[in-house]
Amino acid sequence: MHGAGDVRIESVPDARLIDPTDALLRVTRACVCGSDLWPYKTMERSESGRRMGHEAIGVVEAVGDDVHTAKVGDLVVMPFAYSDGTCIFCHEHLQTSCIHGGFFGTGEADGAQAEALRVPQADGTLVALPVGEDDELMPSLLTLSDVMGTGHHAAVAAKVGPGKSVAVVGDGAVGLCGVIAARRLGAEQIIILGRHPDRIALAKDFGATDVVSERGDEAAERVRELTGGFGVHSVLECVGLEQSTLTAISIARPGGAIGRVGVPQDEKMPASQPAFYGNITVSGGPAPVRAYIEELLPDILEGRIEPGRVFDRTVPLDGVPDGYRAMDEREAIKVMVKP
Amino acid sequence: MHGAGDVRIESVPDARLIDPTDALLRVTRACVCGSDLWPYKTMERSESGRRMGHEAIGVVEAVGDDVHTAKVGDLVVMPFAYSDGTCIFCHEHLQTSCIHGGFFGTGEADGAQAEALRVPQADGTLVALPVGEDDELMPSLLTLSDVMGTGHHAAVAAKVGPGKSVAVVGDGAVGLCGVIAARRLGAEQIIILGRHPDRIALAKDFGATDVVSERGDEAAERVRELTGGFGVHSVLECVGLEQSTLTAISIARPGGAIGRVGVPQDEKMPASQPAFYGNITVSGGPAPVRAYIEELLPDILEGRIEPGRVFDRTVPLDGVPDGYRAMDEREAIKVMVKP
Repeated sequence: MHGAGDVRIESVPDARLIDPTDALLRVTRACVCGSDLWPYKTMERSESGRRMGHEAIGVVEAVGDDVHTAKVGDLVVMPFAYSDGTCIFCHEHLQTSCIHGGFFGTGEADGAQAEALRVPQADGTLVALPVGEDDELMPSLLTLSDVMGTGHHAAVAAKVGPGKSVAVVGDGAVGLCGVIAARRLGAEQIIILGRHPDRIALAKDFGATDVVSERGDEAAERVRELTGGFGVHSVLECVGLEQSTLTAISIARPGGAIGRVGVPQDEKMPASQPAFYGNITVSGGPAPVRAYIEELLPDILEGRIEPGRVFDRTVPLDGVPDGYRAMDEREAIKVMVKP
Repeated sequence: MHGAGDVRIESVPDARLIDPTDALLRVTRACVCGSDLWPYKTMERSESGRRMGHEAIGVVEAVGDDVHTAKVGDLVVMPFAYSDGTCIFCHEHLQTSCIHGGFFGTGEADGAQAEALRVPQADGTLVALPVGEDDELMPSLLTLSDVMGTGHHAAVAAKVGPGKSVAVVGDGAVGLCGVIAARRLGAEQIIILGRHPDRIALAKDFGATDVVSERGDEAAERVRELTGGFGVHSVLECVGLEQSTLTAISIARPGGAIGRVGVPQDEKMPASQPAFYGNITVSGGPAPVRAYIEELLPDILEGRIEPGRVFDRTVPLDGVPDGYRAMDEREAIKVMVKP
């Protein structure tokens, strides 16, 4: 990406091992993330550009001398953050704060919208998949690299559990995965806030029990109507804008919790006082998706959840620029890349 | 209170029963709260004035027809919020959000810096004490009406537990009770942020293991030095200002939690992005002190905790205006009122 709206497919030097803990990954599936749209809207022009993409499944082509778990030939899922798996935060299942970790596609590591990339901390980062590289489950397995784990993180942070009422703010791929996660964790009522018919239909398939298409104060009023006047126990904030955060706080019932996974676009959080007076917990952040793969993988392999349905378009590498455009214009929910 | 800095002792019509769920309380002990200092600094001039005070111990002098638990003659502690004890939020131990509840000394109910007051929802609100009205434990028992329960709430919201590292932002009565609560819940390291020698000495007596007297960025740096570079698991935010909230977020380690009990003075919360990137939980609010009385009372009666030591001055009713001044000028930590 060379600036807002300017995505190009360029030839760069081949990815190669640098550190002994690296693996070289040949990408078999990647995708475009809702969070990629923030720089797509706002990035300042850059001569050197930024290598984009942080979600991938691929085949390990080479490993450094200190890599012992990942094996050449393994088909693996790559979480959007790399992590060593051994530090104090990895042990606490917060791999996104790994002391030796970082994030793909941000400038500090290669991007995954590519033929291949270098994966630092390969043993801590990569998880082998027990399927072939063209398995029909590939779309759902790919969501383990970000959106399904992120939706699950929002639900965990928002304390979703059996019998709880849940609202999901945002009908993008993460919000839709949040619906799956909420249902999977036993929520009784799942309200999706959104207005795009195709997304709403998918949300209902995933387990949403109610739809609120209003916005702002009207949305809050409608959610209260649907919840006996009190608001919901759990809100999954999957957008990150001031207005969506304000909505999230206004629809949480007293003592409720908000799980934020939309990257906040503002330095300050709105409605600090209402959140305080309602004893509302605000939690969440970058999802440690690495921590959730073992828990979510069996549900995908055994067909209990189908998060891969968020992909409604597949493009080859040279279709990536148009994939950004399609997602930005809400023509596509999420675009898969098949290099 | 008739305006900022203008506290007067005035004769008003005698408190009396209005609703059948009311009790009439003769106040034997009350006090001035740190939160009373916000209107003391900023309240606009008012002809009618506002009846202040929300913390009390007293004797039940009369009860309405629907009061069945509270008995005439009982010595009781009165939480700063009244609550019916039967609604959905009371059942969830969040009495400060009681559907039929409210707050003393705010204009919606009588104030406790008085000879007597009407207590709505008496059965849900009042808790009988198994001691005489001049028992030497009176100061500690009085803290159950607010500051000890509030410090405990901050610790619970900040997920304090055995082996955790804790920082307490604010060395007022609530912060000091937060130190007691953190120790009581098993914290291993308790860092008090403050600079008043008498308060620091008390914090150490209460269990603080470290003192940070720096402010702002320097305070954050010092806390990180004391915690292996990471920050603390739990922060008790007992002030409510933008700067103190900023400090609280900057000293929490990734995955840590902040328990807010200082009433936020700003509409927006600072450092929303750092809190997000660190997966820091922000929780807390008005403490449901009613929920904590049964848990904390035995520790006071059996001498395991002595929160009453936060009172360093006692005044009669006509000494209340000077009590406000003394607390505002930090001449006193907390002023007890003996009508």
